[in-house]
Amino acid sequence: MRSPIPEYLDEVLRNCADDRAGAVADYVPELAAADPEQLAVAVSAVDGTVYEAGDSRSAFTIQSISKPFVYALALADRGCEAVLARIGVEPSGEAFNELSLEEGSARPRNPMINVGALTAHTLAGPPGAPREERFERIVAGISAFAGRRLEVDEAVCRSEWGTAHRNLAIAHMLRGYEVIEEDAPRVVADYIRQCSLLVTTRDLALMAATLANGGVQPVTGEQVVSREVVRQVLSVMTTCGMYDAAGDWVTTVGIPAKSGVSGGILGALPGQVGIGVLSPRLDRHGNSVRGVRVCERLSADMGLHLMEAPAPARSALRGGRVLHGPGSRSALVHELQGTLQFAGAERLVHGIAHTPPGHDEIGLDLTRVHSVNSVARRMILETVRRLTLDGHAVTLIDPEGVLPDPDAGDGVRPRVVDTWEWGAAPGPGS
Amino acid sequence: MRSPIPEYLDEVLRNCADDRAGAVADYVPELAAADPEQLAVAVSAVDGTVYEAGDSRSAFTIQSISKPFVYALALADRGCEAVLARIGVEPSGEAFNELSLEEGSARPRNPMINVGALTAHTLAGPPGAPREERFERIVAGISAFAGRRLEVDEAVCRSEWGTAHRNLAIAHMLRGYEVIEEDAPRVVADYIRQCSLLVTTRDLALMAATLANGGVQPVTGEQVVSREVVRQVLSVMTTCGMYDAAGDWVTTVGIPAKSGVSGGILGALPGQVGIGVLSPRLDRHGNSVRGVRVCERLSADMGLHLMEAPAPARSALRGGRVLHGPGSRSALVHELQGTLQFAGAERLVHGIAHTPPGHDEIGLDLTRVHSVNSVARRMILETVRRLTLDGHAVTLIDPEGVLPDPDAGDGVRPRVVDTWEWGAAPGPGS
Amino acid sequence: MRSPIPEYLDEVLRNCADDRAGAVADYVPELAAADPEQLAVAVSAVDGTVYEAGDSRSAFTIQSISKPFVYALALADRGCEAVLARIGVEPSGEAFNELSLEEGSARPRNPMINVGALTAHTLAGPPGAPREERFERIVAGISAFAGRRLEVDEAVCRSEWGTAHRNLAIAHMLRGYEVIEEDAPRVVADYIRQCSLLVTTRDLALMAATLANGGVQPVTGEQVVSREVVRQVLSVMTTCGMYDAAGDWVTTVGIPAKSGVSGGILGALPGQVGIGVLSPRLDRHGNSVRGVRVCERLSADMGLHLMEAPAPARSALRGGRVLHGPGSRSALVHELQGTLQFAGAERLVHGIAHTPPGHDEIGLDLTRVHSVNSVARRMILETVRRLTLDGHAVTLIDPEGVLPDPDAGDGVRPRVVDTWEWGAAPGPGS
Amino acid sequence: MRSPIPEYLDEVLRNCADDRAGAVADYVPELAAADPEQLAVAVSAVDGTVYEAGDSRSAFTIQSISKPFVYALALADRGCEAVLARIGVEPSGEAFNELSLEEGSARPRNPMINVGALTAHTLAGPPGAPREERFERIVAGISAFAGRRLEVDEAVCRSEWGTAHRNLAIAHMLRGYEVIEEDAPRVVADYIRQCSLLVTTRDLALMAATLANGGVQPVTGEQVVSREVVRQVLSVMTTCGMYDAAGDWVTTVGIPAKSGVSGGILGALPGQVGIGVLSPRLDRHGNSVRGVRVCERLSADMGLHLMEAPAPARSALRGGRVLHGPGSRSALVHELQGTLQFAGAERLVHGIAHTPPGHDEIGLDLTRVHSVNSVARRMILETVRRLTLDGHAVTLIDPEGVLPDPDAGDGVRPRVVDTWEWGAAPGPGS
Repeated sequence: MRSPIPEYLDEVLRNCADDRAGAVADYVPELAAADPEQLAVAVSAVDGTVYEAGDSRSAFTIQSISKPFVYALALADRGCEAVLARIGVEPSGEAFNELSLEEGSARPRNPMINVGALTAHTLAGPPGAPREERFERIVAGISAFAGRRLEVDEAVCRSEWGTAHRNLAIAHMLRGYEVIEEDAPRVVADYIRQCSLLVTTRDLALMAATLANGGVQPVTGEQVVSREVVRQVLSVMTTCGMYDAAGDWVTTVGIPAKSGVSGGILGALPGQVGIGVLSPRLDRHGNSVRGVRVCERLSADMGLHLMEAPAPARSALRGGRVLHGPGSRSALVHELQGTLQFAGAERLVHGIAHTPPGHDEIGLDLTRVHSVNSVARRMILETVRRLTLDGHAVTLIDPEGVLPDPDAGDGVRPRVVDTWEWGAAPGPGS
Repeated sequence: MRSPIPEYLDEVLRNCADDRAGAVADYVPELAAADPEQLAVAVSAVDGTVYEAGDSRSAFTIQSISKPFVYALALADRGCEAVLARIGVEPSGEAFNELSLEEGSARPRNPMINVGALTAHTLAGPPGAPREERFERIVAGISAFAGRRLEVDEAVCRSEWGTAHRNLAIAHMLRGYEVIEEDAPRVVADYIRQCSLLVTTRDLALMAATLANGGVQPVTGEQVVSREVVRQVLSVMTTCGMYDAAGDWVTTVGIPAKSGVSGGILGALPGQVGIGVLSPRLDRHGNSVRGVRVCERLSADMGLHLMEAPAPARSALRGGRVLHGPGSRSALVHELQGTLQFAGAERLVHGIAHTPPGHDEIGLDLTRVHSVNSVARRMILETVRRLTLDGHAVTLIDPEGVLPDPDAGDGVRPRVVDTWEWGAAPGPGS
Repeated sequence: MRSPIPEYLDEVLRNCADDRAGAVADYVPELAAADPEQLAVAVSAVDGTVYEAGDSRSAFTIQSISKPFVYALALADRGCEAVLARIGVEPSGEAFNELSLEEGSARPRNPMINVGALTAHTLAGPPGAPREERFERIVAGISAFAGRRLEVDEAVCRSEWGTAHRNLAIAHMLRGYEVIEEDAPRVVADYIRQCSLLVTTRDLALMAATLANGGVQPVTGEQVVSREVVRQVLSVMTTCGMYDAAGDWVTTVGIPAKSGVSGGILGALPGQVGIGVLSPRLDRHGNSVRGVRVCERLSADMGLHLMEAPAPARSALRGGRVLHGPGSRSALVHELQGTLQFAGAERLVHGIAHTPPGHDEIGLDLTRVHSVNSVARRMILETVRRLTLDGHAVTLIDPEGVLPDPDAGDGVRPRVVDTWEWGAAPGPGS
Repeated sequence: MRSPIPEYLDEVLRNCADDRAGAVADYVPELAAADPEQLAVAVSAVDGTVYEAGDSRSAFTIQSISKPFVYALALADRGCEAVLARIGVEPSGEAFNELSLEEGSARPRNPMINVGALTAHTLAGPPGAPREERFERIVAGISAFAGRRLEVDEAVCRSEWGTAHRNLAIAHMLRGYEVIEEDAPRVVADYIRQCSLLVTTRDLALMAATLANGGVQPVTGEQVVSREVVRQVLSVMTTCGMYDAAGDWVTTVGIPAKSGVSGGILGALPGQVGIGVLSPRLDRHGNSVRGVRVCERLSADMGLHLMEAPAPARSALRGGRVLHGPGSRSALVHELQGTLQFAGAERLVHGIAHTPPGHDEIGLDLTRVHSVNSVARRMILETVRRLTLDGHAVTLIDPEGVLPDPDAGDGVRPRVVDTWEWGAAPGPGS
């Protein structure tokens, strides 16, 4: 059987192919030379399986899509507080005014506009590092998201330098307000090199999947940045990634995203997928016309939207069985299932708190549970602790080890078994 | 055993209790009389179980927290397109300028600021309905979210009318720009009544849980508004709910929310929980000081953040068993688990597309699956269709009916069983 | 001989008559009924001689042209400080945002936009006066500028009330920010009556001439408001009178002006002329299209521009004559001419300070001087004082009394004569 | 006798000397070294007589006060239209946003903020001139206003270059928007040299007097720029010269002005005076604290305010004499006086149009007239023409030649005499 997903992606591209609105960016000769008909999409599962359609292996310069990743590196290297002191997180509203800083703080409003991205560039790597070292950190860091070493397109880089007036303006202004401390033209030169890294649409999907996967590159398995950094980056992409229409993007697409002037769009839906799209013609906001359409289709067809939660986890507590053992012993075994986060663990706690007394033993059957996050783990262990202190013998049935090393505190550790078995009969003194 | 959650909530309140920053709203005498020390929190699971701490049963006026609900009613009654023609979805930036309309469209920027909320008020109920009917629609609609009939606090309502200057200004401006067609003072009078509905912190949690639960009130089971309406409302709450700092709220708390001048905050995390908080002292943005702190604590402690996805659903395809049946028949049974959305269904499709040929029968074991959303359903059925066209006999093992009425198109319908059993041996002609 | 000025004005109107750009204001039915072809101009000398062309005796409602006059009345009745505390003097930039107040002070930006004009309306007359009294003060005050009792057009007034939404919005907002203290709808009702006063183009010219004439109505001779008030009003008209293009108006026309939605424009050039123009079709700023063209023509043709100073007053000191009198007495008579302000008086002081010593008597011949302002008077008298203290006998030749009651201080009073005559010979003891 | 003006200026300085508010500009080390106690004022009559007090001969760098003069040079060299295509004339409102351009046109808002001044710098001299030539044009041009060759302070120039970040930002932005075409850093380098020209307070007064004198340097007599250029420059200084409070400056001081970061202020009142002030401590707008106070004093004490017109010119027509000549001939001689602009000439026309018929000859006695501007000249000649065509013999009595070469058109030329004398008796055929 062939997977229907590539066919589906082919169909999505076919549906958008006739839309020739917009224009290729022409402020840089090398960009203006892009084939306007290029069209590609790639979707990566959070385990790194990639589905592709169109010119998904063609290389183009990453441009502004480098911004969230360099922001991520800055957060990783300097810490959230230090980065927030230099760059805000608010949508900027007007594209035209993109040189402006927040009144009062004199910070760039967010890292997704050039003024913030130039600042983020200077915050990658350790403080005071030479520019060569910082640039290598950036190339290596973005490459780690992609899972392969990326190269600079030197021709585009040279071409962009010739028309870098606005970025030079921004960098000098940042220097004037002491937001950056480096020599302004050098920062611009390196930033342009950053933007000239070559990626494919497939790369974008894998880079996005790394974000969707909590910072772990799904193919290499490398934890590129921490979950906390990913959360911050995805949050900022949500409100600031698609320029001056945050609300419109969140309501209609609902996928944290970033676009670039080459016509690429990258989207990452936490826990679900990474998406890459390419089509060089841009709308007046600077977003790829067909790229936006593809994202809207994927969101609508596939239910990929931040607000489209999984069906409520009400069945985390699947039920209970009463077992009768030797010597009139009885056990109540609670059966759990699914992915346990707060909501699921709450079901467990709720169910146990309301079950009738009278059973010697309590079993928690985790056989059908496939993952337990940290708050759910804490809640299960607290439940174990309380039940034990209430005089119950507690057993975890956990054949796959989803709750490893179950130390409930106060010296309480439940028995762990693969399938139910009666424990030793309680001695007279227990 | 007592649930640890109420204890946790008590502790959260204790930690915030000493923060006496901010001031009770004083522009209305009746609001100024609120006890500044009031403090309450309530958290509702999406099945309607509510955990509470503090003064969670005290009633206060709903104020601006009515906005997302009346917006939801307008969307339900007039349709998304008609409402978007009148009210935008972009963050407004400046609180001070809240009388302003979008240039060009002359729409209020979003329904969470007064100018948009007054407009949304006029869009509830059928077009042309008398104001009494419209108001009853609003009371009944908000009450449906709460799961009980809410009442107006007539004293607050009268008190607010005396200082309704700014709302009168807004309504007259809306009338001047033909955004509303009704008599401006009457709209303000009714809007003030809407804001004077009495709720408790517990009510807020249940109203929020209704949003988190896809529009279904978890206690009454009523589908108050559609999933599409909920998605729109939660999206707008994300970017516009907490006034002029959308980016800050999304990064630090990450829960779609709305605050009110009485000191309430309502937060809804899709698929997880509804939250209500009350503390009357407000910061300069008009948000409850301790309310914000409580939300930050809950988000951090409980991993409640839009970008904190469930652990990746990579294990949706649990594995496969090869069964050998009578007459050298062999079957390959794929075992699925968990909540199936796009990502999980993709695992299934991926796994099946890559399994070796050579088995007469293919089984899809859904025993451990607890829900299947529409895109996952389509993908599973497409898989069934392709396997069947490839010559396989396909059987669904679905003891709980998570995939009811499995029509794969082209006349293909798989066999459905509760546990594996060999089908009739294929006839010679099949 | 017929004056060429009316012919010139006829020609100016003929040149503009074909311009049919713009549209009559249509937000009020009664205004929309105006004949779009109406065209009139009137120019009043500061002595009240009026030259007219076109429909200069047709009546129309004064609308926004009432604003500078009611501002003048407020300044007269409450004093400049009290009025500045409520209304700023800065150009507002955007017409669209006209509801906004200055951040910080919460003042309307200036009295020429509606938000400031409504505020100025409430500041006319004594504090706390009943609204009937205040309205009578306004009618009487504006009438005093026109030199005849003006009447309200009740039909327009009623018609405007039906579409007064935006003014109601503004008034409620002003009430909300406590800029005004009265009942908002009543203020709007009275303000609309103020705007409905009927004037002719000829009236506008005379009202403007009153401003150009230092506050003295040239026909009635009444000092309607003080010079200080006039200076403030003309200053504000210069930067705020023609809506959102202060710089453009000052550079190209250079006449303090105010336009109204009926199509009138009033311009006042201090010391020179008052101008009234009427043509109902408005440009997108709300200014009369042909009215603006007429003003541009008048400014260009007639050198009527604030920056077109009179030819430098370097000849204020015309020269000196040495006279030889009886008994070898000699006198030096300085001959002055023209209008003496600072610059002219400086010439006198300069000339006298540098004349050679040796003359018993000094004469200041003011025969050719036609006016002396207060600073010039002080400088002449100080010169007289110093010359006297230096031992000179000083005589003023002032046949027309342009320097009445010449008390130079320190007991010094010069002799005043109509034509030169030798004084009494100094006694031996002097 | 000593002139009282220097004493008055001394007193003004004494009154302000104790005000030590504000701070010396410190962004450039060389500027920070200025003596904060420096205080100087100079007032120049339009004939070049200068009155001074304080450190009026100390040199400091001209800084932003160069802006109106370089704007004047650009207007002179490229024409008003070409310059307006690149630089607007509207007040900019916010100092903070000074990098912004007008939406739509992408022009700097005005030439008094840096973004406009850098642009004006590139428009001095002929298009395409080498930068050395352009810079020499600028030095020579500003020097011509001062009446002496100015020199660059090389130390300040070097010092400013080290902190020129913001100007570099602006220049790169201008280059990016194609407002300027030159290499951005070179433009900034030259602009900084322009700002480093050394002037004294006395120089400022004379430069201002050149503007007040219609572009003629009063000492050298050179017409530095045309009257039209001066009108444009003074208009822009009026609305944009003192940064972000145009209305406040126009109402309280009413003198077109420009300030600089060294603490200088230059003010020019057309036809009256040029003013220079120096005091290095600046307020938050960047204007000299004591400099502003001095200007306010001079305006208030000396009646120096744009809106303080000369006493109305109603006496331009002084009166008429009827003369009886030989052979029962009679003449009516109209006697004029003062400076004739439109208003005065209108008096003449008015008077003549209303005088009774019956006189053979009409005389216009210009003996007491000291200047006639172009519109007044046209009106007088038109009057002559009409009287002649009506059959009158017209004689101009113009001993000082204020109306040279009186060609009235249609072949009409009046007789010109120094004092009245009867012309030849009309022949029988005339």
